[in-house]
Amino acid sequence: MAHPAKAFRAAVAGASGYAGGEVLRLLLSHPRIEIGALTGGSNAGARLGELQPHLLPLADRVLQPTDPATLAGHDIVFLGLPHGQSAAVAEQLGEDVLVVDCGADFRLKDPADWEKFYGSPHAGTWPYGLPELPGARAALKGSARIAVPGCYPTAVTLALLPAYTAGLAEPEAVVVAASGTSGAGKAARTHLLGSEVMGSMSPYGVGGVHRHTPEMTQNLSLAAGERVAVSFTPTLAPMSRGILATCSVKARPGVTARQVRDAYTAAYAAEPFAHLLPEGQWPATASVLGSNHALVQVALDQGVGRITVVSAIDNLVKGTAGGAVQSMNIALGLPEELGLPQTGVAP
Amino acid sequence: MAHPAKAFRAAVAGASGYAGGEVLRLLLSHPRIEIGALTGGSNAGARLGELQPHLLPLADRVLQPTDPATLAGHDIVFLGLPHGQSAAVAEQLGEDVLVVDCGADFRLKDPADWEKFYGSPHAGTWPYGLPELPGARAALKGSARIAVPGCYPTAVTLALLPAYTAGLAEPEAVVVAASGTSGAGKAARTHLLGSEVMGSMSPYGVGGVHRHTPEMTQNLSLAAGERVAVSFTPTLAPMSRGILATCSVKARPGVTARQVRDAYTAAYAAEPFAHLLPEGQWPATASVLGSNHALVQVALDQGVGRITVVSAIDNLVKGTAGGAVQSMNIALGLPEELGLPQTGVAP
Amino acid sequence: MAHPAKAFRAAVAGASGYAGGEVLRLLLSHPRIEIGALTGGSNAGARLGELQPHLLPLADRVLQPTDPATLAGHDIVFLGLPHGQSAAVAEQLGEDVLVVDCGADFRLKDPADWEKFYGSPHAGTWPYGLPELPGARAALKGSARIAVPGCYPTAVTLALLPAYTAGLAEPEAVVVAASGTSGAGKAARTHLLGSEVMGSMSPYGVGGVHRHTPEMTQNLSLAAGERVAVSFTPTLAPMSRGILATCSVKARPGVTARQVRDAYTAAYAAEPFAHLLPEGQWPATASVLGSNHALVQVALDQGVGRITVVSAIDNLVKGTAGGAVQSMNIALGLPEELGLPQTGVAP
Amino acid sequence: MAHPAKAFRAAVAGASGYAGGEVLRLLLSHPRIEIGALTGGSNAGARLGELQPHLLPLADRVLQPTDPATLAGHDIVFLGLPHGQSAAVAEQLGEDVLVVDCGADFRLKDPADWEKFYGSPHAGTWPYGLPELPGARAALKGSARIAVPGCYPTAVTLALLPAYTAGLAEPEAVVVAASGTSGAGKAARTHLLGSEVMGSMSPYGVGGVHRHTPEMTQNLSLAAGERVAVSFTPTLAPMSRGILATCSVKARPGVTARQVRDAYTAAYAAEPFAHLLPEGQWPATASVLGSNHALVQVALDQGVGRITVVSAIDNLVKGTAGGAVQSMNIALGLPEELGLPQTGVAP
Repeated sequence: MAHPAKAFRAAVAGASGYAGGEVLRLLLSHPRIEIGALTGGSNAGARLGELQPHLLPLADRVLQPTDPATLAGHDIVFLGLPHGQSAAVAEQLGEDVLVVDCGADFRLKDPADWEKFYGSPHAGTWPYGLPELPGARAALKGSARIAVPGCYPTAVTLALLPAYTAGLAEPEAVVVAASGTSGAGKAARTHLLGSEVMGSMSPYGVGGVHRHTPEMTQNLSLAAGERVAVSFTPTLAPMSRGILATCSVKARPGVTARQVRDAYTAAYAAEPFAHLLPEGQWPATASVLGSNHALVQVALDQGVGRITVVSAIDNLVKGTAGGAVQSMNIALGLPEELGLPQTGVAP
Repeated sequence: MAHPAKAFRAAVAGASGYAGGEVLRLLLSHPRIEIGALTGGSNAGARLGELQPHLLPLADRVLQPTDPATLAGHDIVFLGLPHGQSAAVAEQLGEDVLVVDCGADFRLKDPADWEKFYGSPHAGTWPYGLPELPGARAALKGSARIAVPGCYPTAVTLALLPAYTAGLAEPEAVVVAASGTSGAGKAARTHLLGSEVMGSMSPYGVGGVHRHTPEMTQNLSLAAGERVAVSFTPTLAPMSRGILATCSVKARPGVTARQVRDAYTAAYAAEPFAHLLPEGQWPATASVLGSNHALVQVALDQGVGRITVVSAIDNLVKGTAGGAVQSMNIALGLPEELGLPQTGVAP
Repeated sequence: MAHPAKAFRAAVAGASGYAGGEVLRLLLSHPRIEIGALTGGSNAGARLGELQPHLLPLADRVLQPTDPATLAGHDIVFLGLPHGQSAAVAEQLGEDVLVVDCGADFRLKDPADWEKFYGSPHAGTWPYGLPELPGARAALKGSARIAVPGCYPTAVTLALLPAYTAGLAEPEAVVVAASGTSGAGKAARTHLLGSEVMGSMSPYGVGGVHRHTPEMTQNLSLAAGERVAVSFTPTLAPMSRGILATCSVKARPGVTARQVRDAYTAAYAAEPFAHLLPEGQWPATASVLGSNHALVQVALDQGVGRITVVSAIDNLVKGTAGGAVQSMNIALGLPEELGLPQTGVAP
Repeated sequence: MAHPAKAFRAAVAGASGYAGGEVLRLLLSHPRIEIGALTGGSNAGARLGELQPHLLPLADRVLQPTDPATLAGHDIVFLGLPHGQSAAVAEQLGEDVLVVDCGADFRLKDPADWEKFYGSPHAGTWPYGLPELPGARAALKGSARIAVPGCYPTAVTLALLPAYTAGLAEPEAVVVAASGTSGAGKAARTHLLGSEVMGSMSPYGVGGVHRHTPEMTQNLSLAAGERVAVSFTPTLAPMSRGILATCSVKARPGVTARQVRDAYTAAYAAEPFAHLLPEGQWPATASVLGSNHALVQVALDQGVGRITVVSAIDNLVKGTAGGAVQSMNIALGLPEELGLPQTGVAP
């Protein structure tokens, strides 16, 4: 190629964690990104090869501390930091730097929601990195700040968005989602040991207390044009990656199976990464392991008058790093699919 | 012991399958049962040690064909047969023989339900082997026939029974349950290969079509005193054993968290195998692996006005073979807990 | 029963760990043991139900601190402590108390081995709790101290004992063993997270540095009557429980397949928990999950003149708590099999 | 790009199996390959989306029968067929078509080996697709036929090649390898059910009878310049993908740890896909999931005078489809790394 397109230079803060590692995996295949500084907290000074041995091309990179000097001089900075830390780092980055926050700090619009669920002052709201949400692409285009959605809200919003946009469902959703353990991060905790999670399913954060609940409510209410109540139960599944979200909503009176299918078909016909499966085929998380696709299927249960929707995503790809890169592409004016994995790694 | 109590002699038809194997595992520890004939279909003639290598004390037993002559002369006959086959076998067994059917044939009361979900004529209804259900112990006592409940209906009924008995919930339940793969049996099918299920969650039988749905409706309606509609979505989890059932019901107006907790506490205070966990502790399937206990926890989500209940069982124990032995104990007038495992095998 | 046999009272120090938990699981089914004090280190004061939710009958027990006053007044004290801590505790227990140490402190005979592999002064040597080893039962009988073998040495010794006792193999063994993650204990460490171990096999302690190596050498040398060199590579497998040990030794010149089989048949014909499988059937760890059996199979590879032996055990049962209870039975003069699980929990 | 390089058109026979599916996954990312006909046996007529739902970009492709007309008109034909079927298909393809056989038919040089292990007449020998083997690249360059190595021989040869090429080891290797279940293929068999393999390790083909044994012997003997005897024990691990090969060889007298490390460093310094890890870091299969890399580590156990080498590969990538594409690149004169995944998908 005579005139290769300019590469953007990206730093990743929190490169030793699962979110940071996955951002790097994707950026390594992205034709327009050059990987710059990698930073860590307690891991600063370590070779990336010890911490992320699967990222072989970066094995000899050494983690630097997460400070302004290290992050300076990049076009893009990805933040994979514990919640509450992004605001301070972002403040020190210029307004011409694209800051992509994989944490929760800037996702919620309502300060009261933030304070209730996170117990700290609200840092603000950034353009929300779920391109499939109405208005999201316009807000992301050219933005210098992106709030990457939570993994559960991504799966659940993509499952229910067409139903609410088309006005087919009552404004109350019951959601039970199973997540792989990587969603809980890389910090060592007893209940996340392999011995504890293999062969076991368990719920947590039951009864409306999980922090992703207000984010789902925010997204679905936006789609519905009215407040949607969400009963959300997350469960931990014995697998590393993947979210399977099973969502149930009451169908509005008179809604037919044909209407439901048509709404979903129309909603996702042009979406590059939200995909309605052919009738009768249900999604499995294995089909999207490593891929940026969300697979969706829907059924109307005539007997109870409820619509059941199931979506599958890779929590670290479409649910985190892939959503981040997809939104970054939009912000930078690049093709939205650029550098994003189209196939799962199965079996 | 100078005068050991008389042993009952039990035959197991379908001893090469998962249900039959688990019945045998439990009977081997039962102080009042002597194991008689073991039969198989296509596996007749094989050593049990090849098919069920974990049942070492029975390794040299040879499977016999499932026919009347083989099953004659036992006090108890357990049937672990494909659905539709139990009626013919049971007919040939005398009315003085206790027949415990681990299959579906005699669970449903409404012939129309049976025909709709199984597509064949209804064989009849036997006393239902869920002792915790109102009236069940009385019906089981002295009975010569027991219909062992399905694994999902066991988990879901034990989760919601107190809420409906106490009149706390509206008559519509949304249930999402994750099951280990042993629930699908031992027949070789591609989608159940280890390569396909490890690392993957997937739904099946979505939209009200799973055969356990009418059984749940039957049980919950009995508890509620009115028809309870059930939206049921089963999912396959990457583990061999265990069911985690997450159930959501609308609280009746004015119901308080205290009332909910009190109802569950009262319902299970005297139950030997249905156990309400202390507040704040949620059940994991690993805690009941190999055990006959059902662990239950409940929360009232004030924000949406719904009650969320989660139960965990071992699908092969409380969900099949343990439920069968517990009901057998009642039928025979033995202590209900006799020979049943009280602890899980964890981690 | 008019005159029930006297119960022995047992305390368990380290009841919150995997070894202590498994000792409790087994003791709950033991007809001659009454469970006394349960102690923990940092977990003292906690309900056992929070830490070991599978031990439902003990859920309301509260952990006490591990000190002499708490452990006093028991017939038996099981120690499930980090290595190096057992000697101090044992010293304070009377010589009439049976102390069963599940740790490593008293396993090795040669102080130099201990110092090389553990880097601390040698505490001494206690009767070794592998009854199948020549002379072990005599040493255990009536003893007030038992050193429970390591999990890998148990699996490897039972695999190679008949070959060395019968003089069939050259004195060099190559051993590769896969262990479930529970062998690494319950302390939270990043590389043991479910996200890290699921879907992954990895070696550790390669090149003769694993602490179980001198213990294997000690056992096999005893059997062979000459020093046996052991090349041992442990690997971590994506499962909670189980050890599969694959052992390869050079056959002595002229050794035939018949001789090999006969030696193994003879060695284990009368053993209650070491079991040679029928020809052609190879052991799987799932077959012994929860059981105290060791399953063994052997083949002579004529092409290379080597004998391959594979053994499977549950690392927490025969490899720890089951071995401990079996040895305790011998020490107390009880039937050796009393209270020990004879069947695996499968699938 | 003004003048895009010509694309080669590739057909895949056996596209519904694991090998065929993985070839397609890799080809979808290959910049010089256009995917042509996809064929299946009993699955002809089915949508690929039903059989390989992770290959979303090809979901609407329909499988055609595996016959000469369908395969005609392609530059490359990949064969993912049961062994014994490749010869007949290959014969009907012109000599100008590059045929890449993922099966075993053309791997062995010695007809007697073939007949002994496969029980059928030997079809012949094709250039062997393990570029790291001495002479292999020269033989592959421009070849119209490629025999893709077996998965175990790939892992084992890459582990031991440097030791034998450098003359450091005696000509007898003891190999124990753990494989994910995808190595056993997609045909439904009871012992490969998820219920059977999860939580379990088991050996198979013990005692020199596994069909990959002569292939290892062939490769290692070529490296050593003398016949190397191989004692090989494969084991099935509870994971979908990955091989961890643990290899033990006697060091030649006087060999030092320095010599061993230097030999491995030199052997793989310039290899794109065989990688010696830094000292002290051992490979895990998770690090290469989805990647074409082989990770290797080596230690000299001074105590027993043996060299232990461990290698990790993805059995479906470097062990099958990745090896196939890497060799294809060489045959076609393309850059060897073109289109091959450089990173694993972890955690």
